[in-house]
Amino acid sequence: MSTAQELDAIGIERLREAGSLKWSAFPEAIGAFVAEMDFPTAPAVADAVKNAVDAGLTGYLPAAVRTRMAEATARWQRDRYGWEVPPERIRPVPDVLTALRTTIDFFTAAGSAIVLPTPAYMPFVTIPAMHGRETVEVPMLVEGGRHVYDLDGIDRALADGGGLLILCNPYNPLGRVFEREELEAVAEIVERRGARVFSDEIHAPLVFAPHRHVPYASISPAAAAHTITAASASKAWNLPGLKAAQVILTNDADVEMWARPEVAWAEHGTANLGVVAATAAFDEGRDWLEETLAYLDGNRRLLGDLLAEHIPAMGYRAPEGTYIAWLDARDLGIDGSPADFFRTRAGVAMTDGIACGAAGEGYLRFILATPRPIIEQAVRQMADALRDHAAR
Amino acid sequence: MSTAQELDAIGIERLREAGSLKWSAFPEAIGAFVAEMDFPTAPAVADAVKNAVDAGLTGYLPAAVRTRMAEATARWQRDRYGWEVPPERIRPVPDVLTALRTTIDFFTAAGSAIVLPTPAYMPFVTIPAMHGRETVEVPMLVEGGRHVYDLDGIDRALADGGGLLILCNPYNPLGRVFEREELEAVAEIVERRGARVFSDEIHAPLVFAPHRHVPYASISPAAAAHTITAASASKAWNLPGLKAAQVILTNDADVEMWARPEVAWAEHGTANLGVVAATAAFDEGRDWLEETLAYLDGNRRLLGDLLAEHIPAMGYRAPEGTYIAWLDARDLGIDGSPADFFRTRAGVAMTDGIACGAAGEGYLRFILATPRPIIEQAVRQMADALRDHAAR
Repeated sequence: MSTAQELDAIGIERLREAGSLKWSAFPEAIGAFVAEMDFPTAPAVADAVKNAVDAGLTGYLPAAVRTRMAEATARWQRDRYGWEVPPERIRPVPDVLTALRTTIDFFTAAGSAIVLPTPAYMPFVTIPAMHGRETVEVPMLVEGGRHVYDLDGIDRALADGGGLLILCNPYNPLGRVFEREELEAVAEIVERRGARVFSDEIHAPLVFAPHRHVPYASISPAAAAHTITAASASKAWNLPGLKAAQVILTNDADVEMWARPEVAWAEHGTANLGVVAATAAFDEGRDWLEETLAYLDGNRRLLGDLLAEHIPAMGYRAPEGTYIAWLDARDLGIDGSPADFFRTRAGVAMTDGIACGAAGEGYLRFILATPRPIIEQAVRQMADALRDHAAR
Repeated sequence: MSTAQELDAIGIERLREAGSLKWSAFPEAIGAFVAEMDFPTAPAVADAVKNAVDAGLTGYLPAAVRTRMAEATARWQRDRYGWEVPPERIRPVPDVLTALRTTIDFFTAAGSAIVLPTPAYMPFVTIPAMHGRETVEVPMLVEGGRHVYDLDGIDRALADGGGLLILCNPYNPLGRVFEREELEAVAEIVERRGARVFSDEIHAPLVFAPHRHVPYASISPAAAAHTITAASASKAWNLPGLKAAQVILTNDADVEMWARPEVAWAEHGTANLGVVAATAAFDEGRDWLEETLAYLDGNRRLLGDLLAEHIPAMGYRAPEGTYIAWLDARDLGIDGSPADFFRTRAGVAMTDGIACGAAGEGYLRFILATPRPIIEQAVRQMADALRDHAAR
């Protein structure tokens, strides 16, 4: 049986029984709202975790285990993106959001605003306020049908007191994989304004050919000097609950700052089994990832075909990376939240775009990392609900 | 083979190879400096974690899995300590220190000092400064050979701007298990001064008869109203690297405060497999714990016998709870740090008491949760080093 057939065969009943967040939060609806995969992680990753348990690796995180993850991350960055990073500059953190919070607290000018291209990953919209910081949303522009940075808007926001620009590449929720020239244009502005960049690259392993991930900090010495990069195996190998990610430091001053105990505290919550899983994913999970990417590639095309056939008024452009689909529901004739409409009327639970910032109003965030028959069922249910709605 | 024989048979070579933090940080020395056990966790716990991996529980933490840990914690608190806590008031956090940091930030008067009986668990000494708070150390008193709270000192510190009293019961590093009357005396002072208590009860499962753990918040409605309790399976079942602990809320105002997103953020880093492990520990790890406690009981007595025979000048009182021995090295004729002396001259790595606060100067913190032959070897090596030292 091929991988695609195996994944196709994972039914809703089995997913409900396994009880992931996606399939338990809304027991009446198809779960498509949280960016996790409905497929088991790579066997090599699962085996590594189970072996670590058998070896008794449940105590405090040993240095050698940390180091192995840093080395595996460095190999991955080098082999996959051509970026050479010294392992000693790769630090363990529990998750990307902890990396962001640490960046805001210790690597930006006190009180400076956080500049956020939108629509954005939902917590990016709300976290700055927890640190007493203003979030300045800079909506993305559309050019030739694809989303691009509003460079003038970013420039103005940084000139107007912005201290940190949050980048997300590959872009959650828009699915863009930025080209080197686009990143260079951003870096020029950030450098001119003396600001910092937090580059969330958690989706980097999830890029569809011919697109290629370019690590933002790798594009120039200037970008390396103003950037803190967050990486993780958690999206591509479906490990968010295991709590391990990597911060990549790319200048001496940041390394020195990270050495301070109150900053290095960010490492404290990193879980052993997450570290072991990430190490195995980067080193031994590569073939599995290729198969999974091929399946996801089919999913992003299938969704396009299904929408064109059943809900042609729904706007959709297949993501270049990530397993997140950004759906434009503005022309569907729905009053109020389209997510509420489809959850209650169609039994499909998605994230409302408004949670991604004001620019997301009228949009939906649909997670593609699910068996294809479930995508078909979701689109069918959505189309039926729209038909019922129109018939009233 | 009995459990004791199995545990006795775990040799240093095997521990080095397994590579725990304790046995890898100082490759030349016996590891006795970090509070983790050299024994594998309960088979029921290891099985639960491996089954969760097989079931694909690597995505975001599902509500049902959180709830199961809360229910298991409630059963444990009820069955073990006679304390009835509603499961919905038990919240997941990655670790006790995250609970403390959240308590300081959101449950104490802004800018108020943190009152800390000392010697204390090392991070308690340093964390308040990370929050811009002063730490007021209140050294414990000795009465009839055992450590007791300096009630007048605590009273003065709270009167003098202290907003939070950190309790640790069973007491790391002193090994005290406080009696109800002692806790009542503390509660009366805290209540009179309008302060809060953070009660670290991470060692509660590790109590030797005839001592009994009394949850601080359980002693009176007043104590419940001013306390935030932190519990965990991580010490007793050796799971610190799996990142799960429990905050027990015992008043409506705290429940309301915890519901705020910036407060509930404390839950964010809790790792699925830690939650699964804690659930299994509290529910299915009880027999294993009894056997382990019996072994540790032997260890604390053995250490006393060995010290009396080989290093009679070393002060030691067997802990009533925890697997931490607090050794008084002040009469050994050592200049400078006794931990440095024993690590470099005896090949035994312990924590220097000074890291536990000024009151710890001249003391050592030795972790007892190790095979008995290793305790014997450690004491022998320490006695030899002292003999060499005296002969110079």
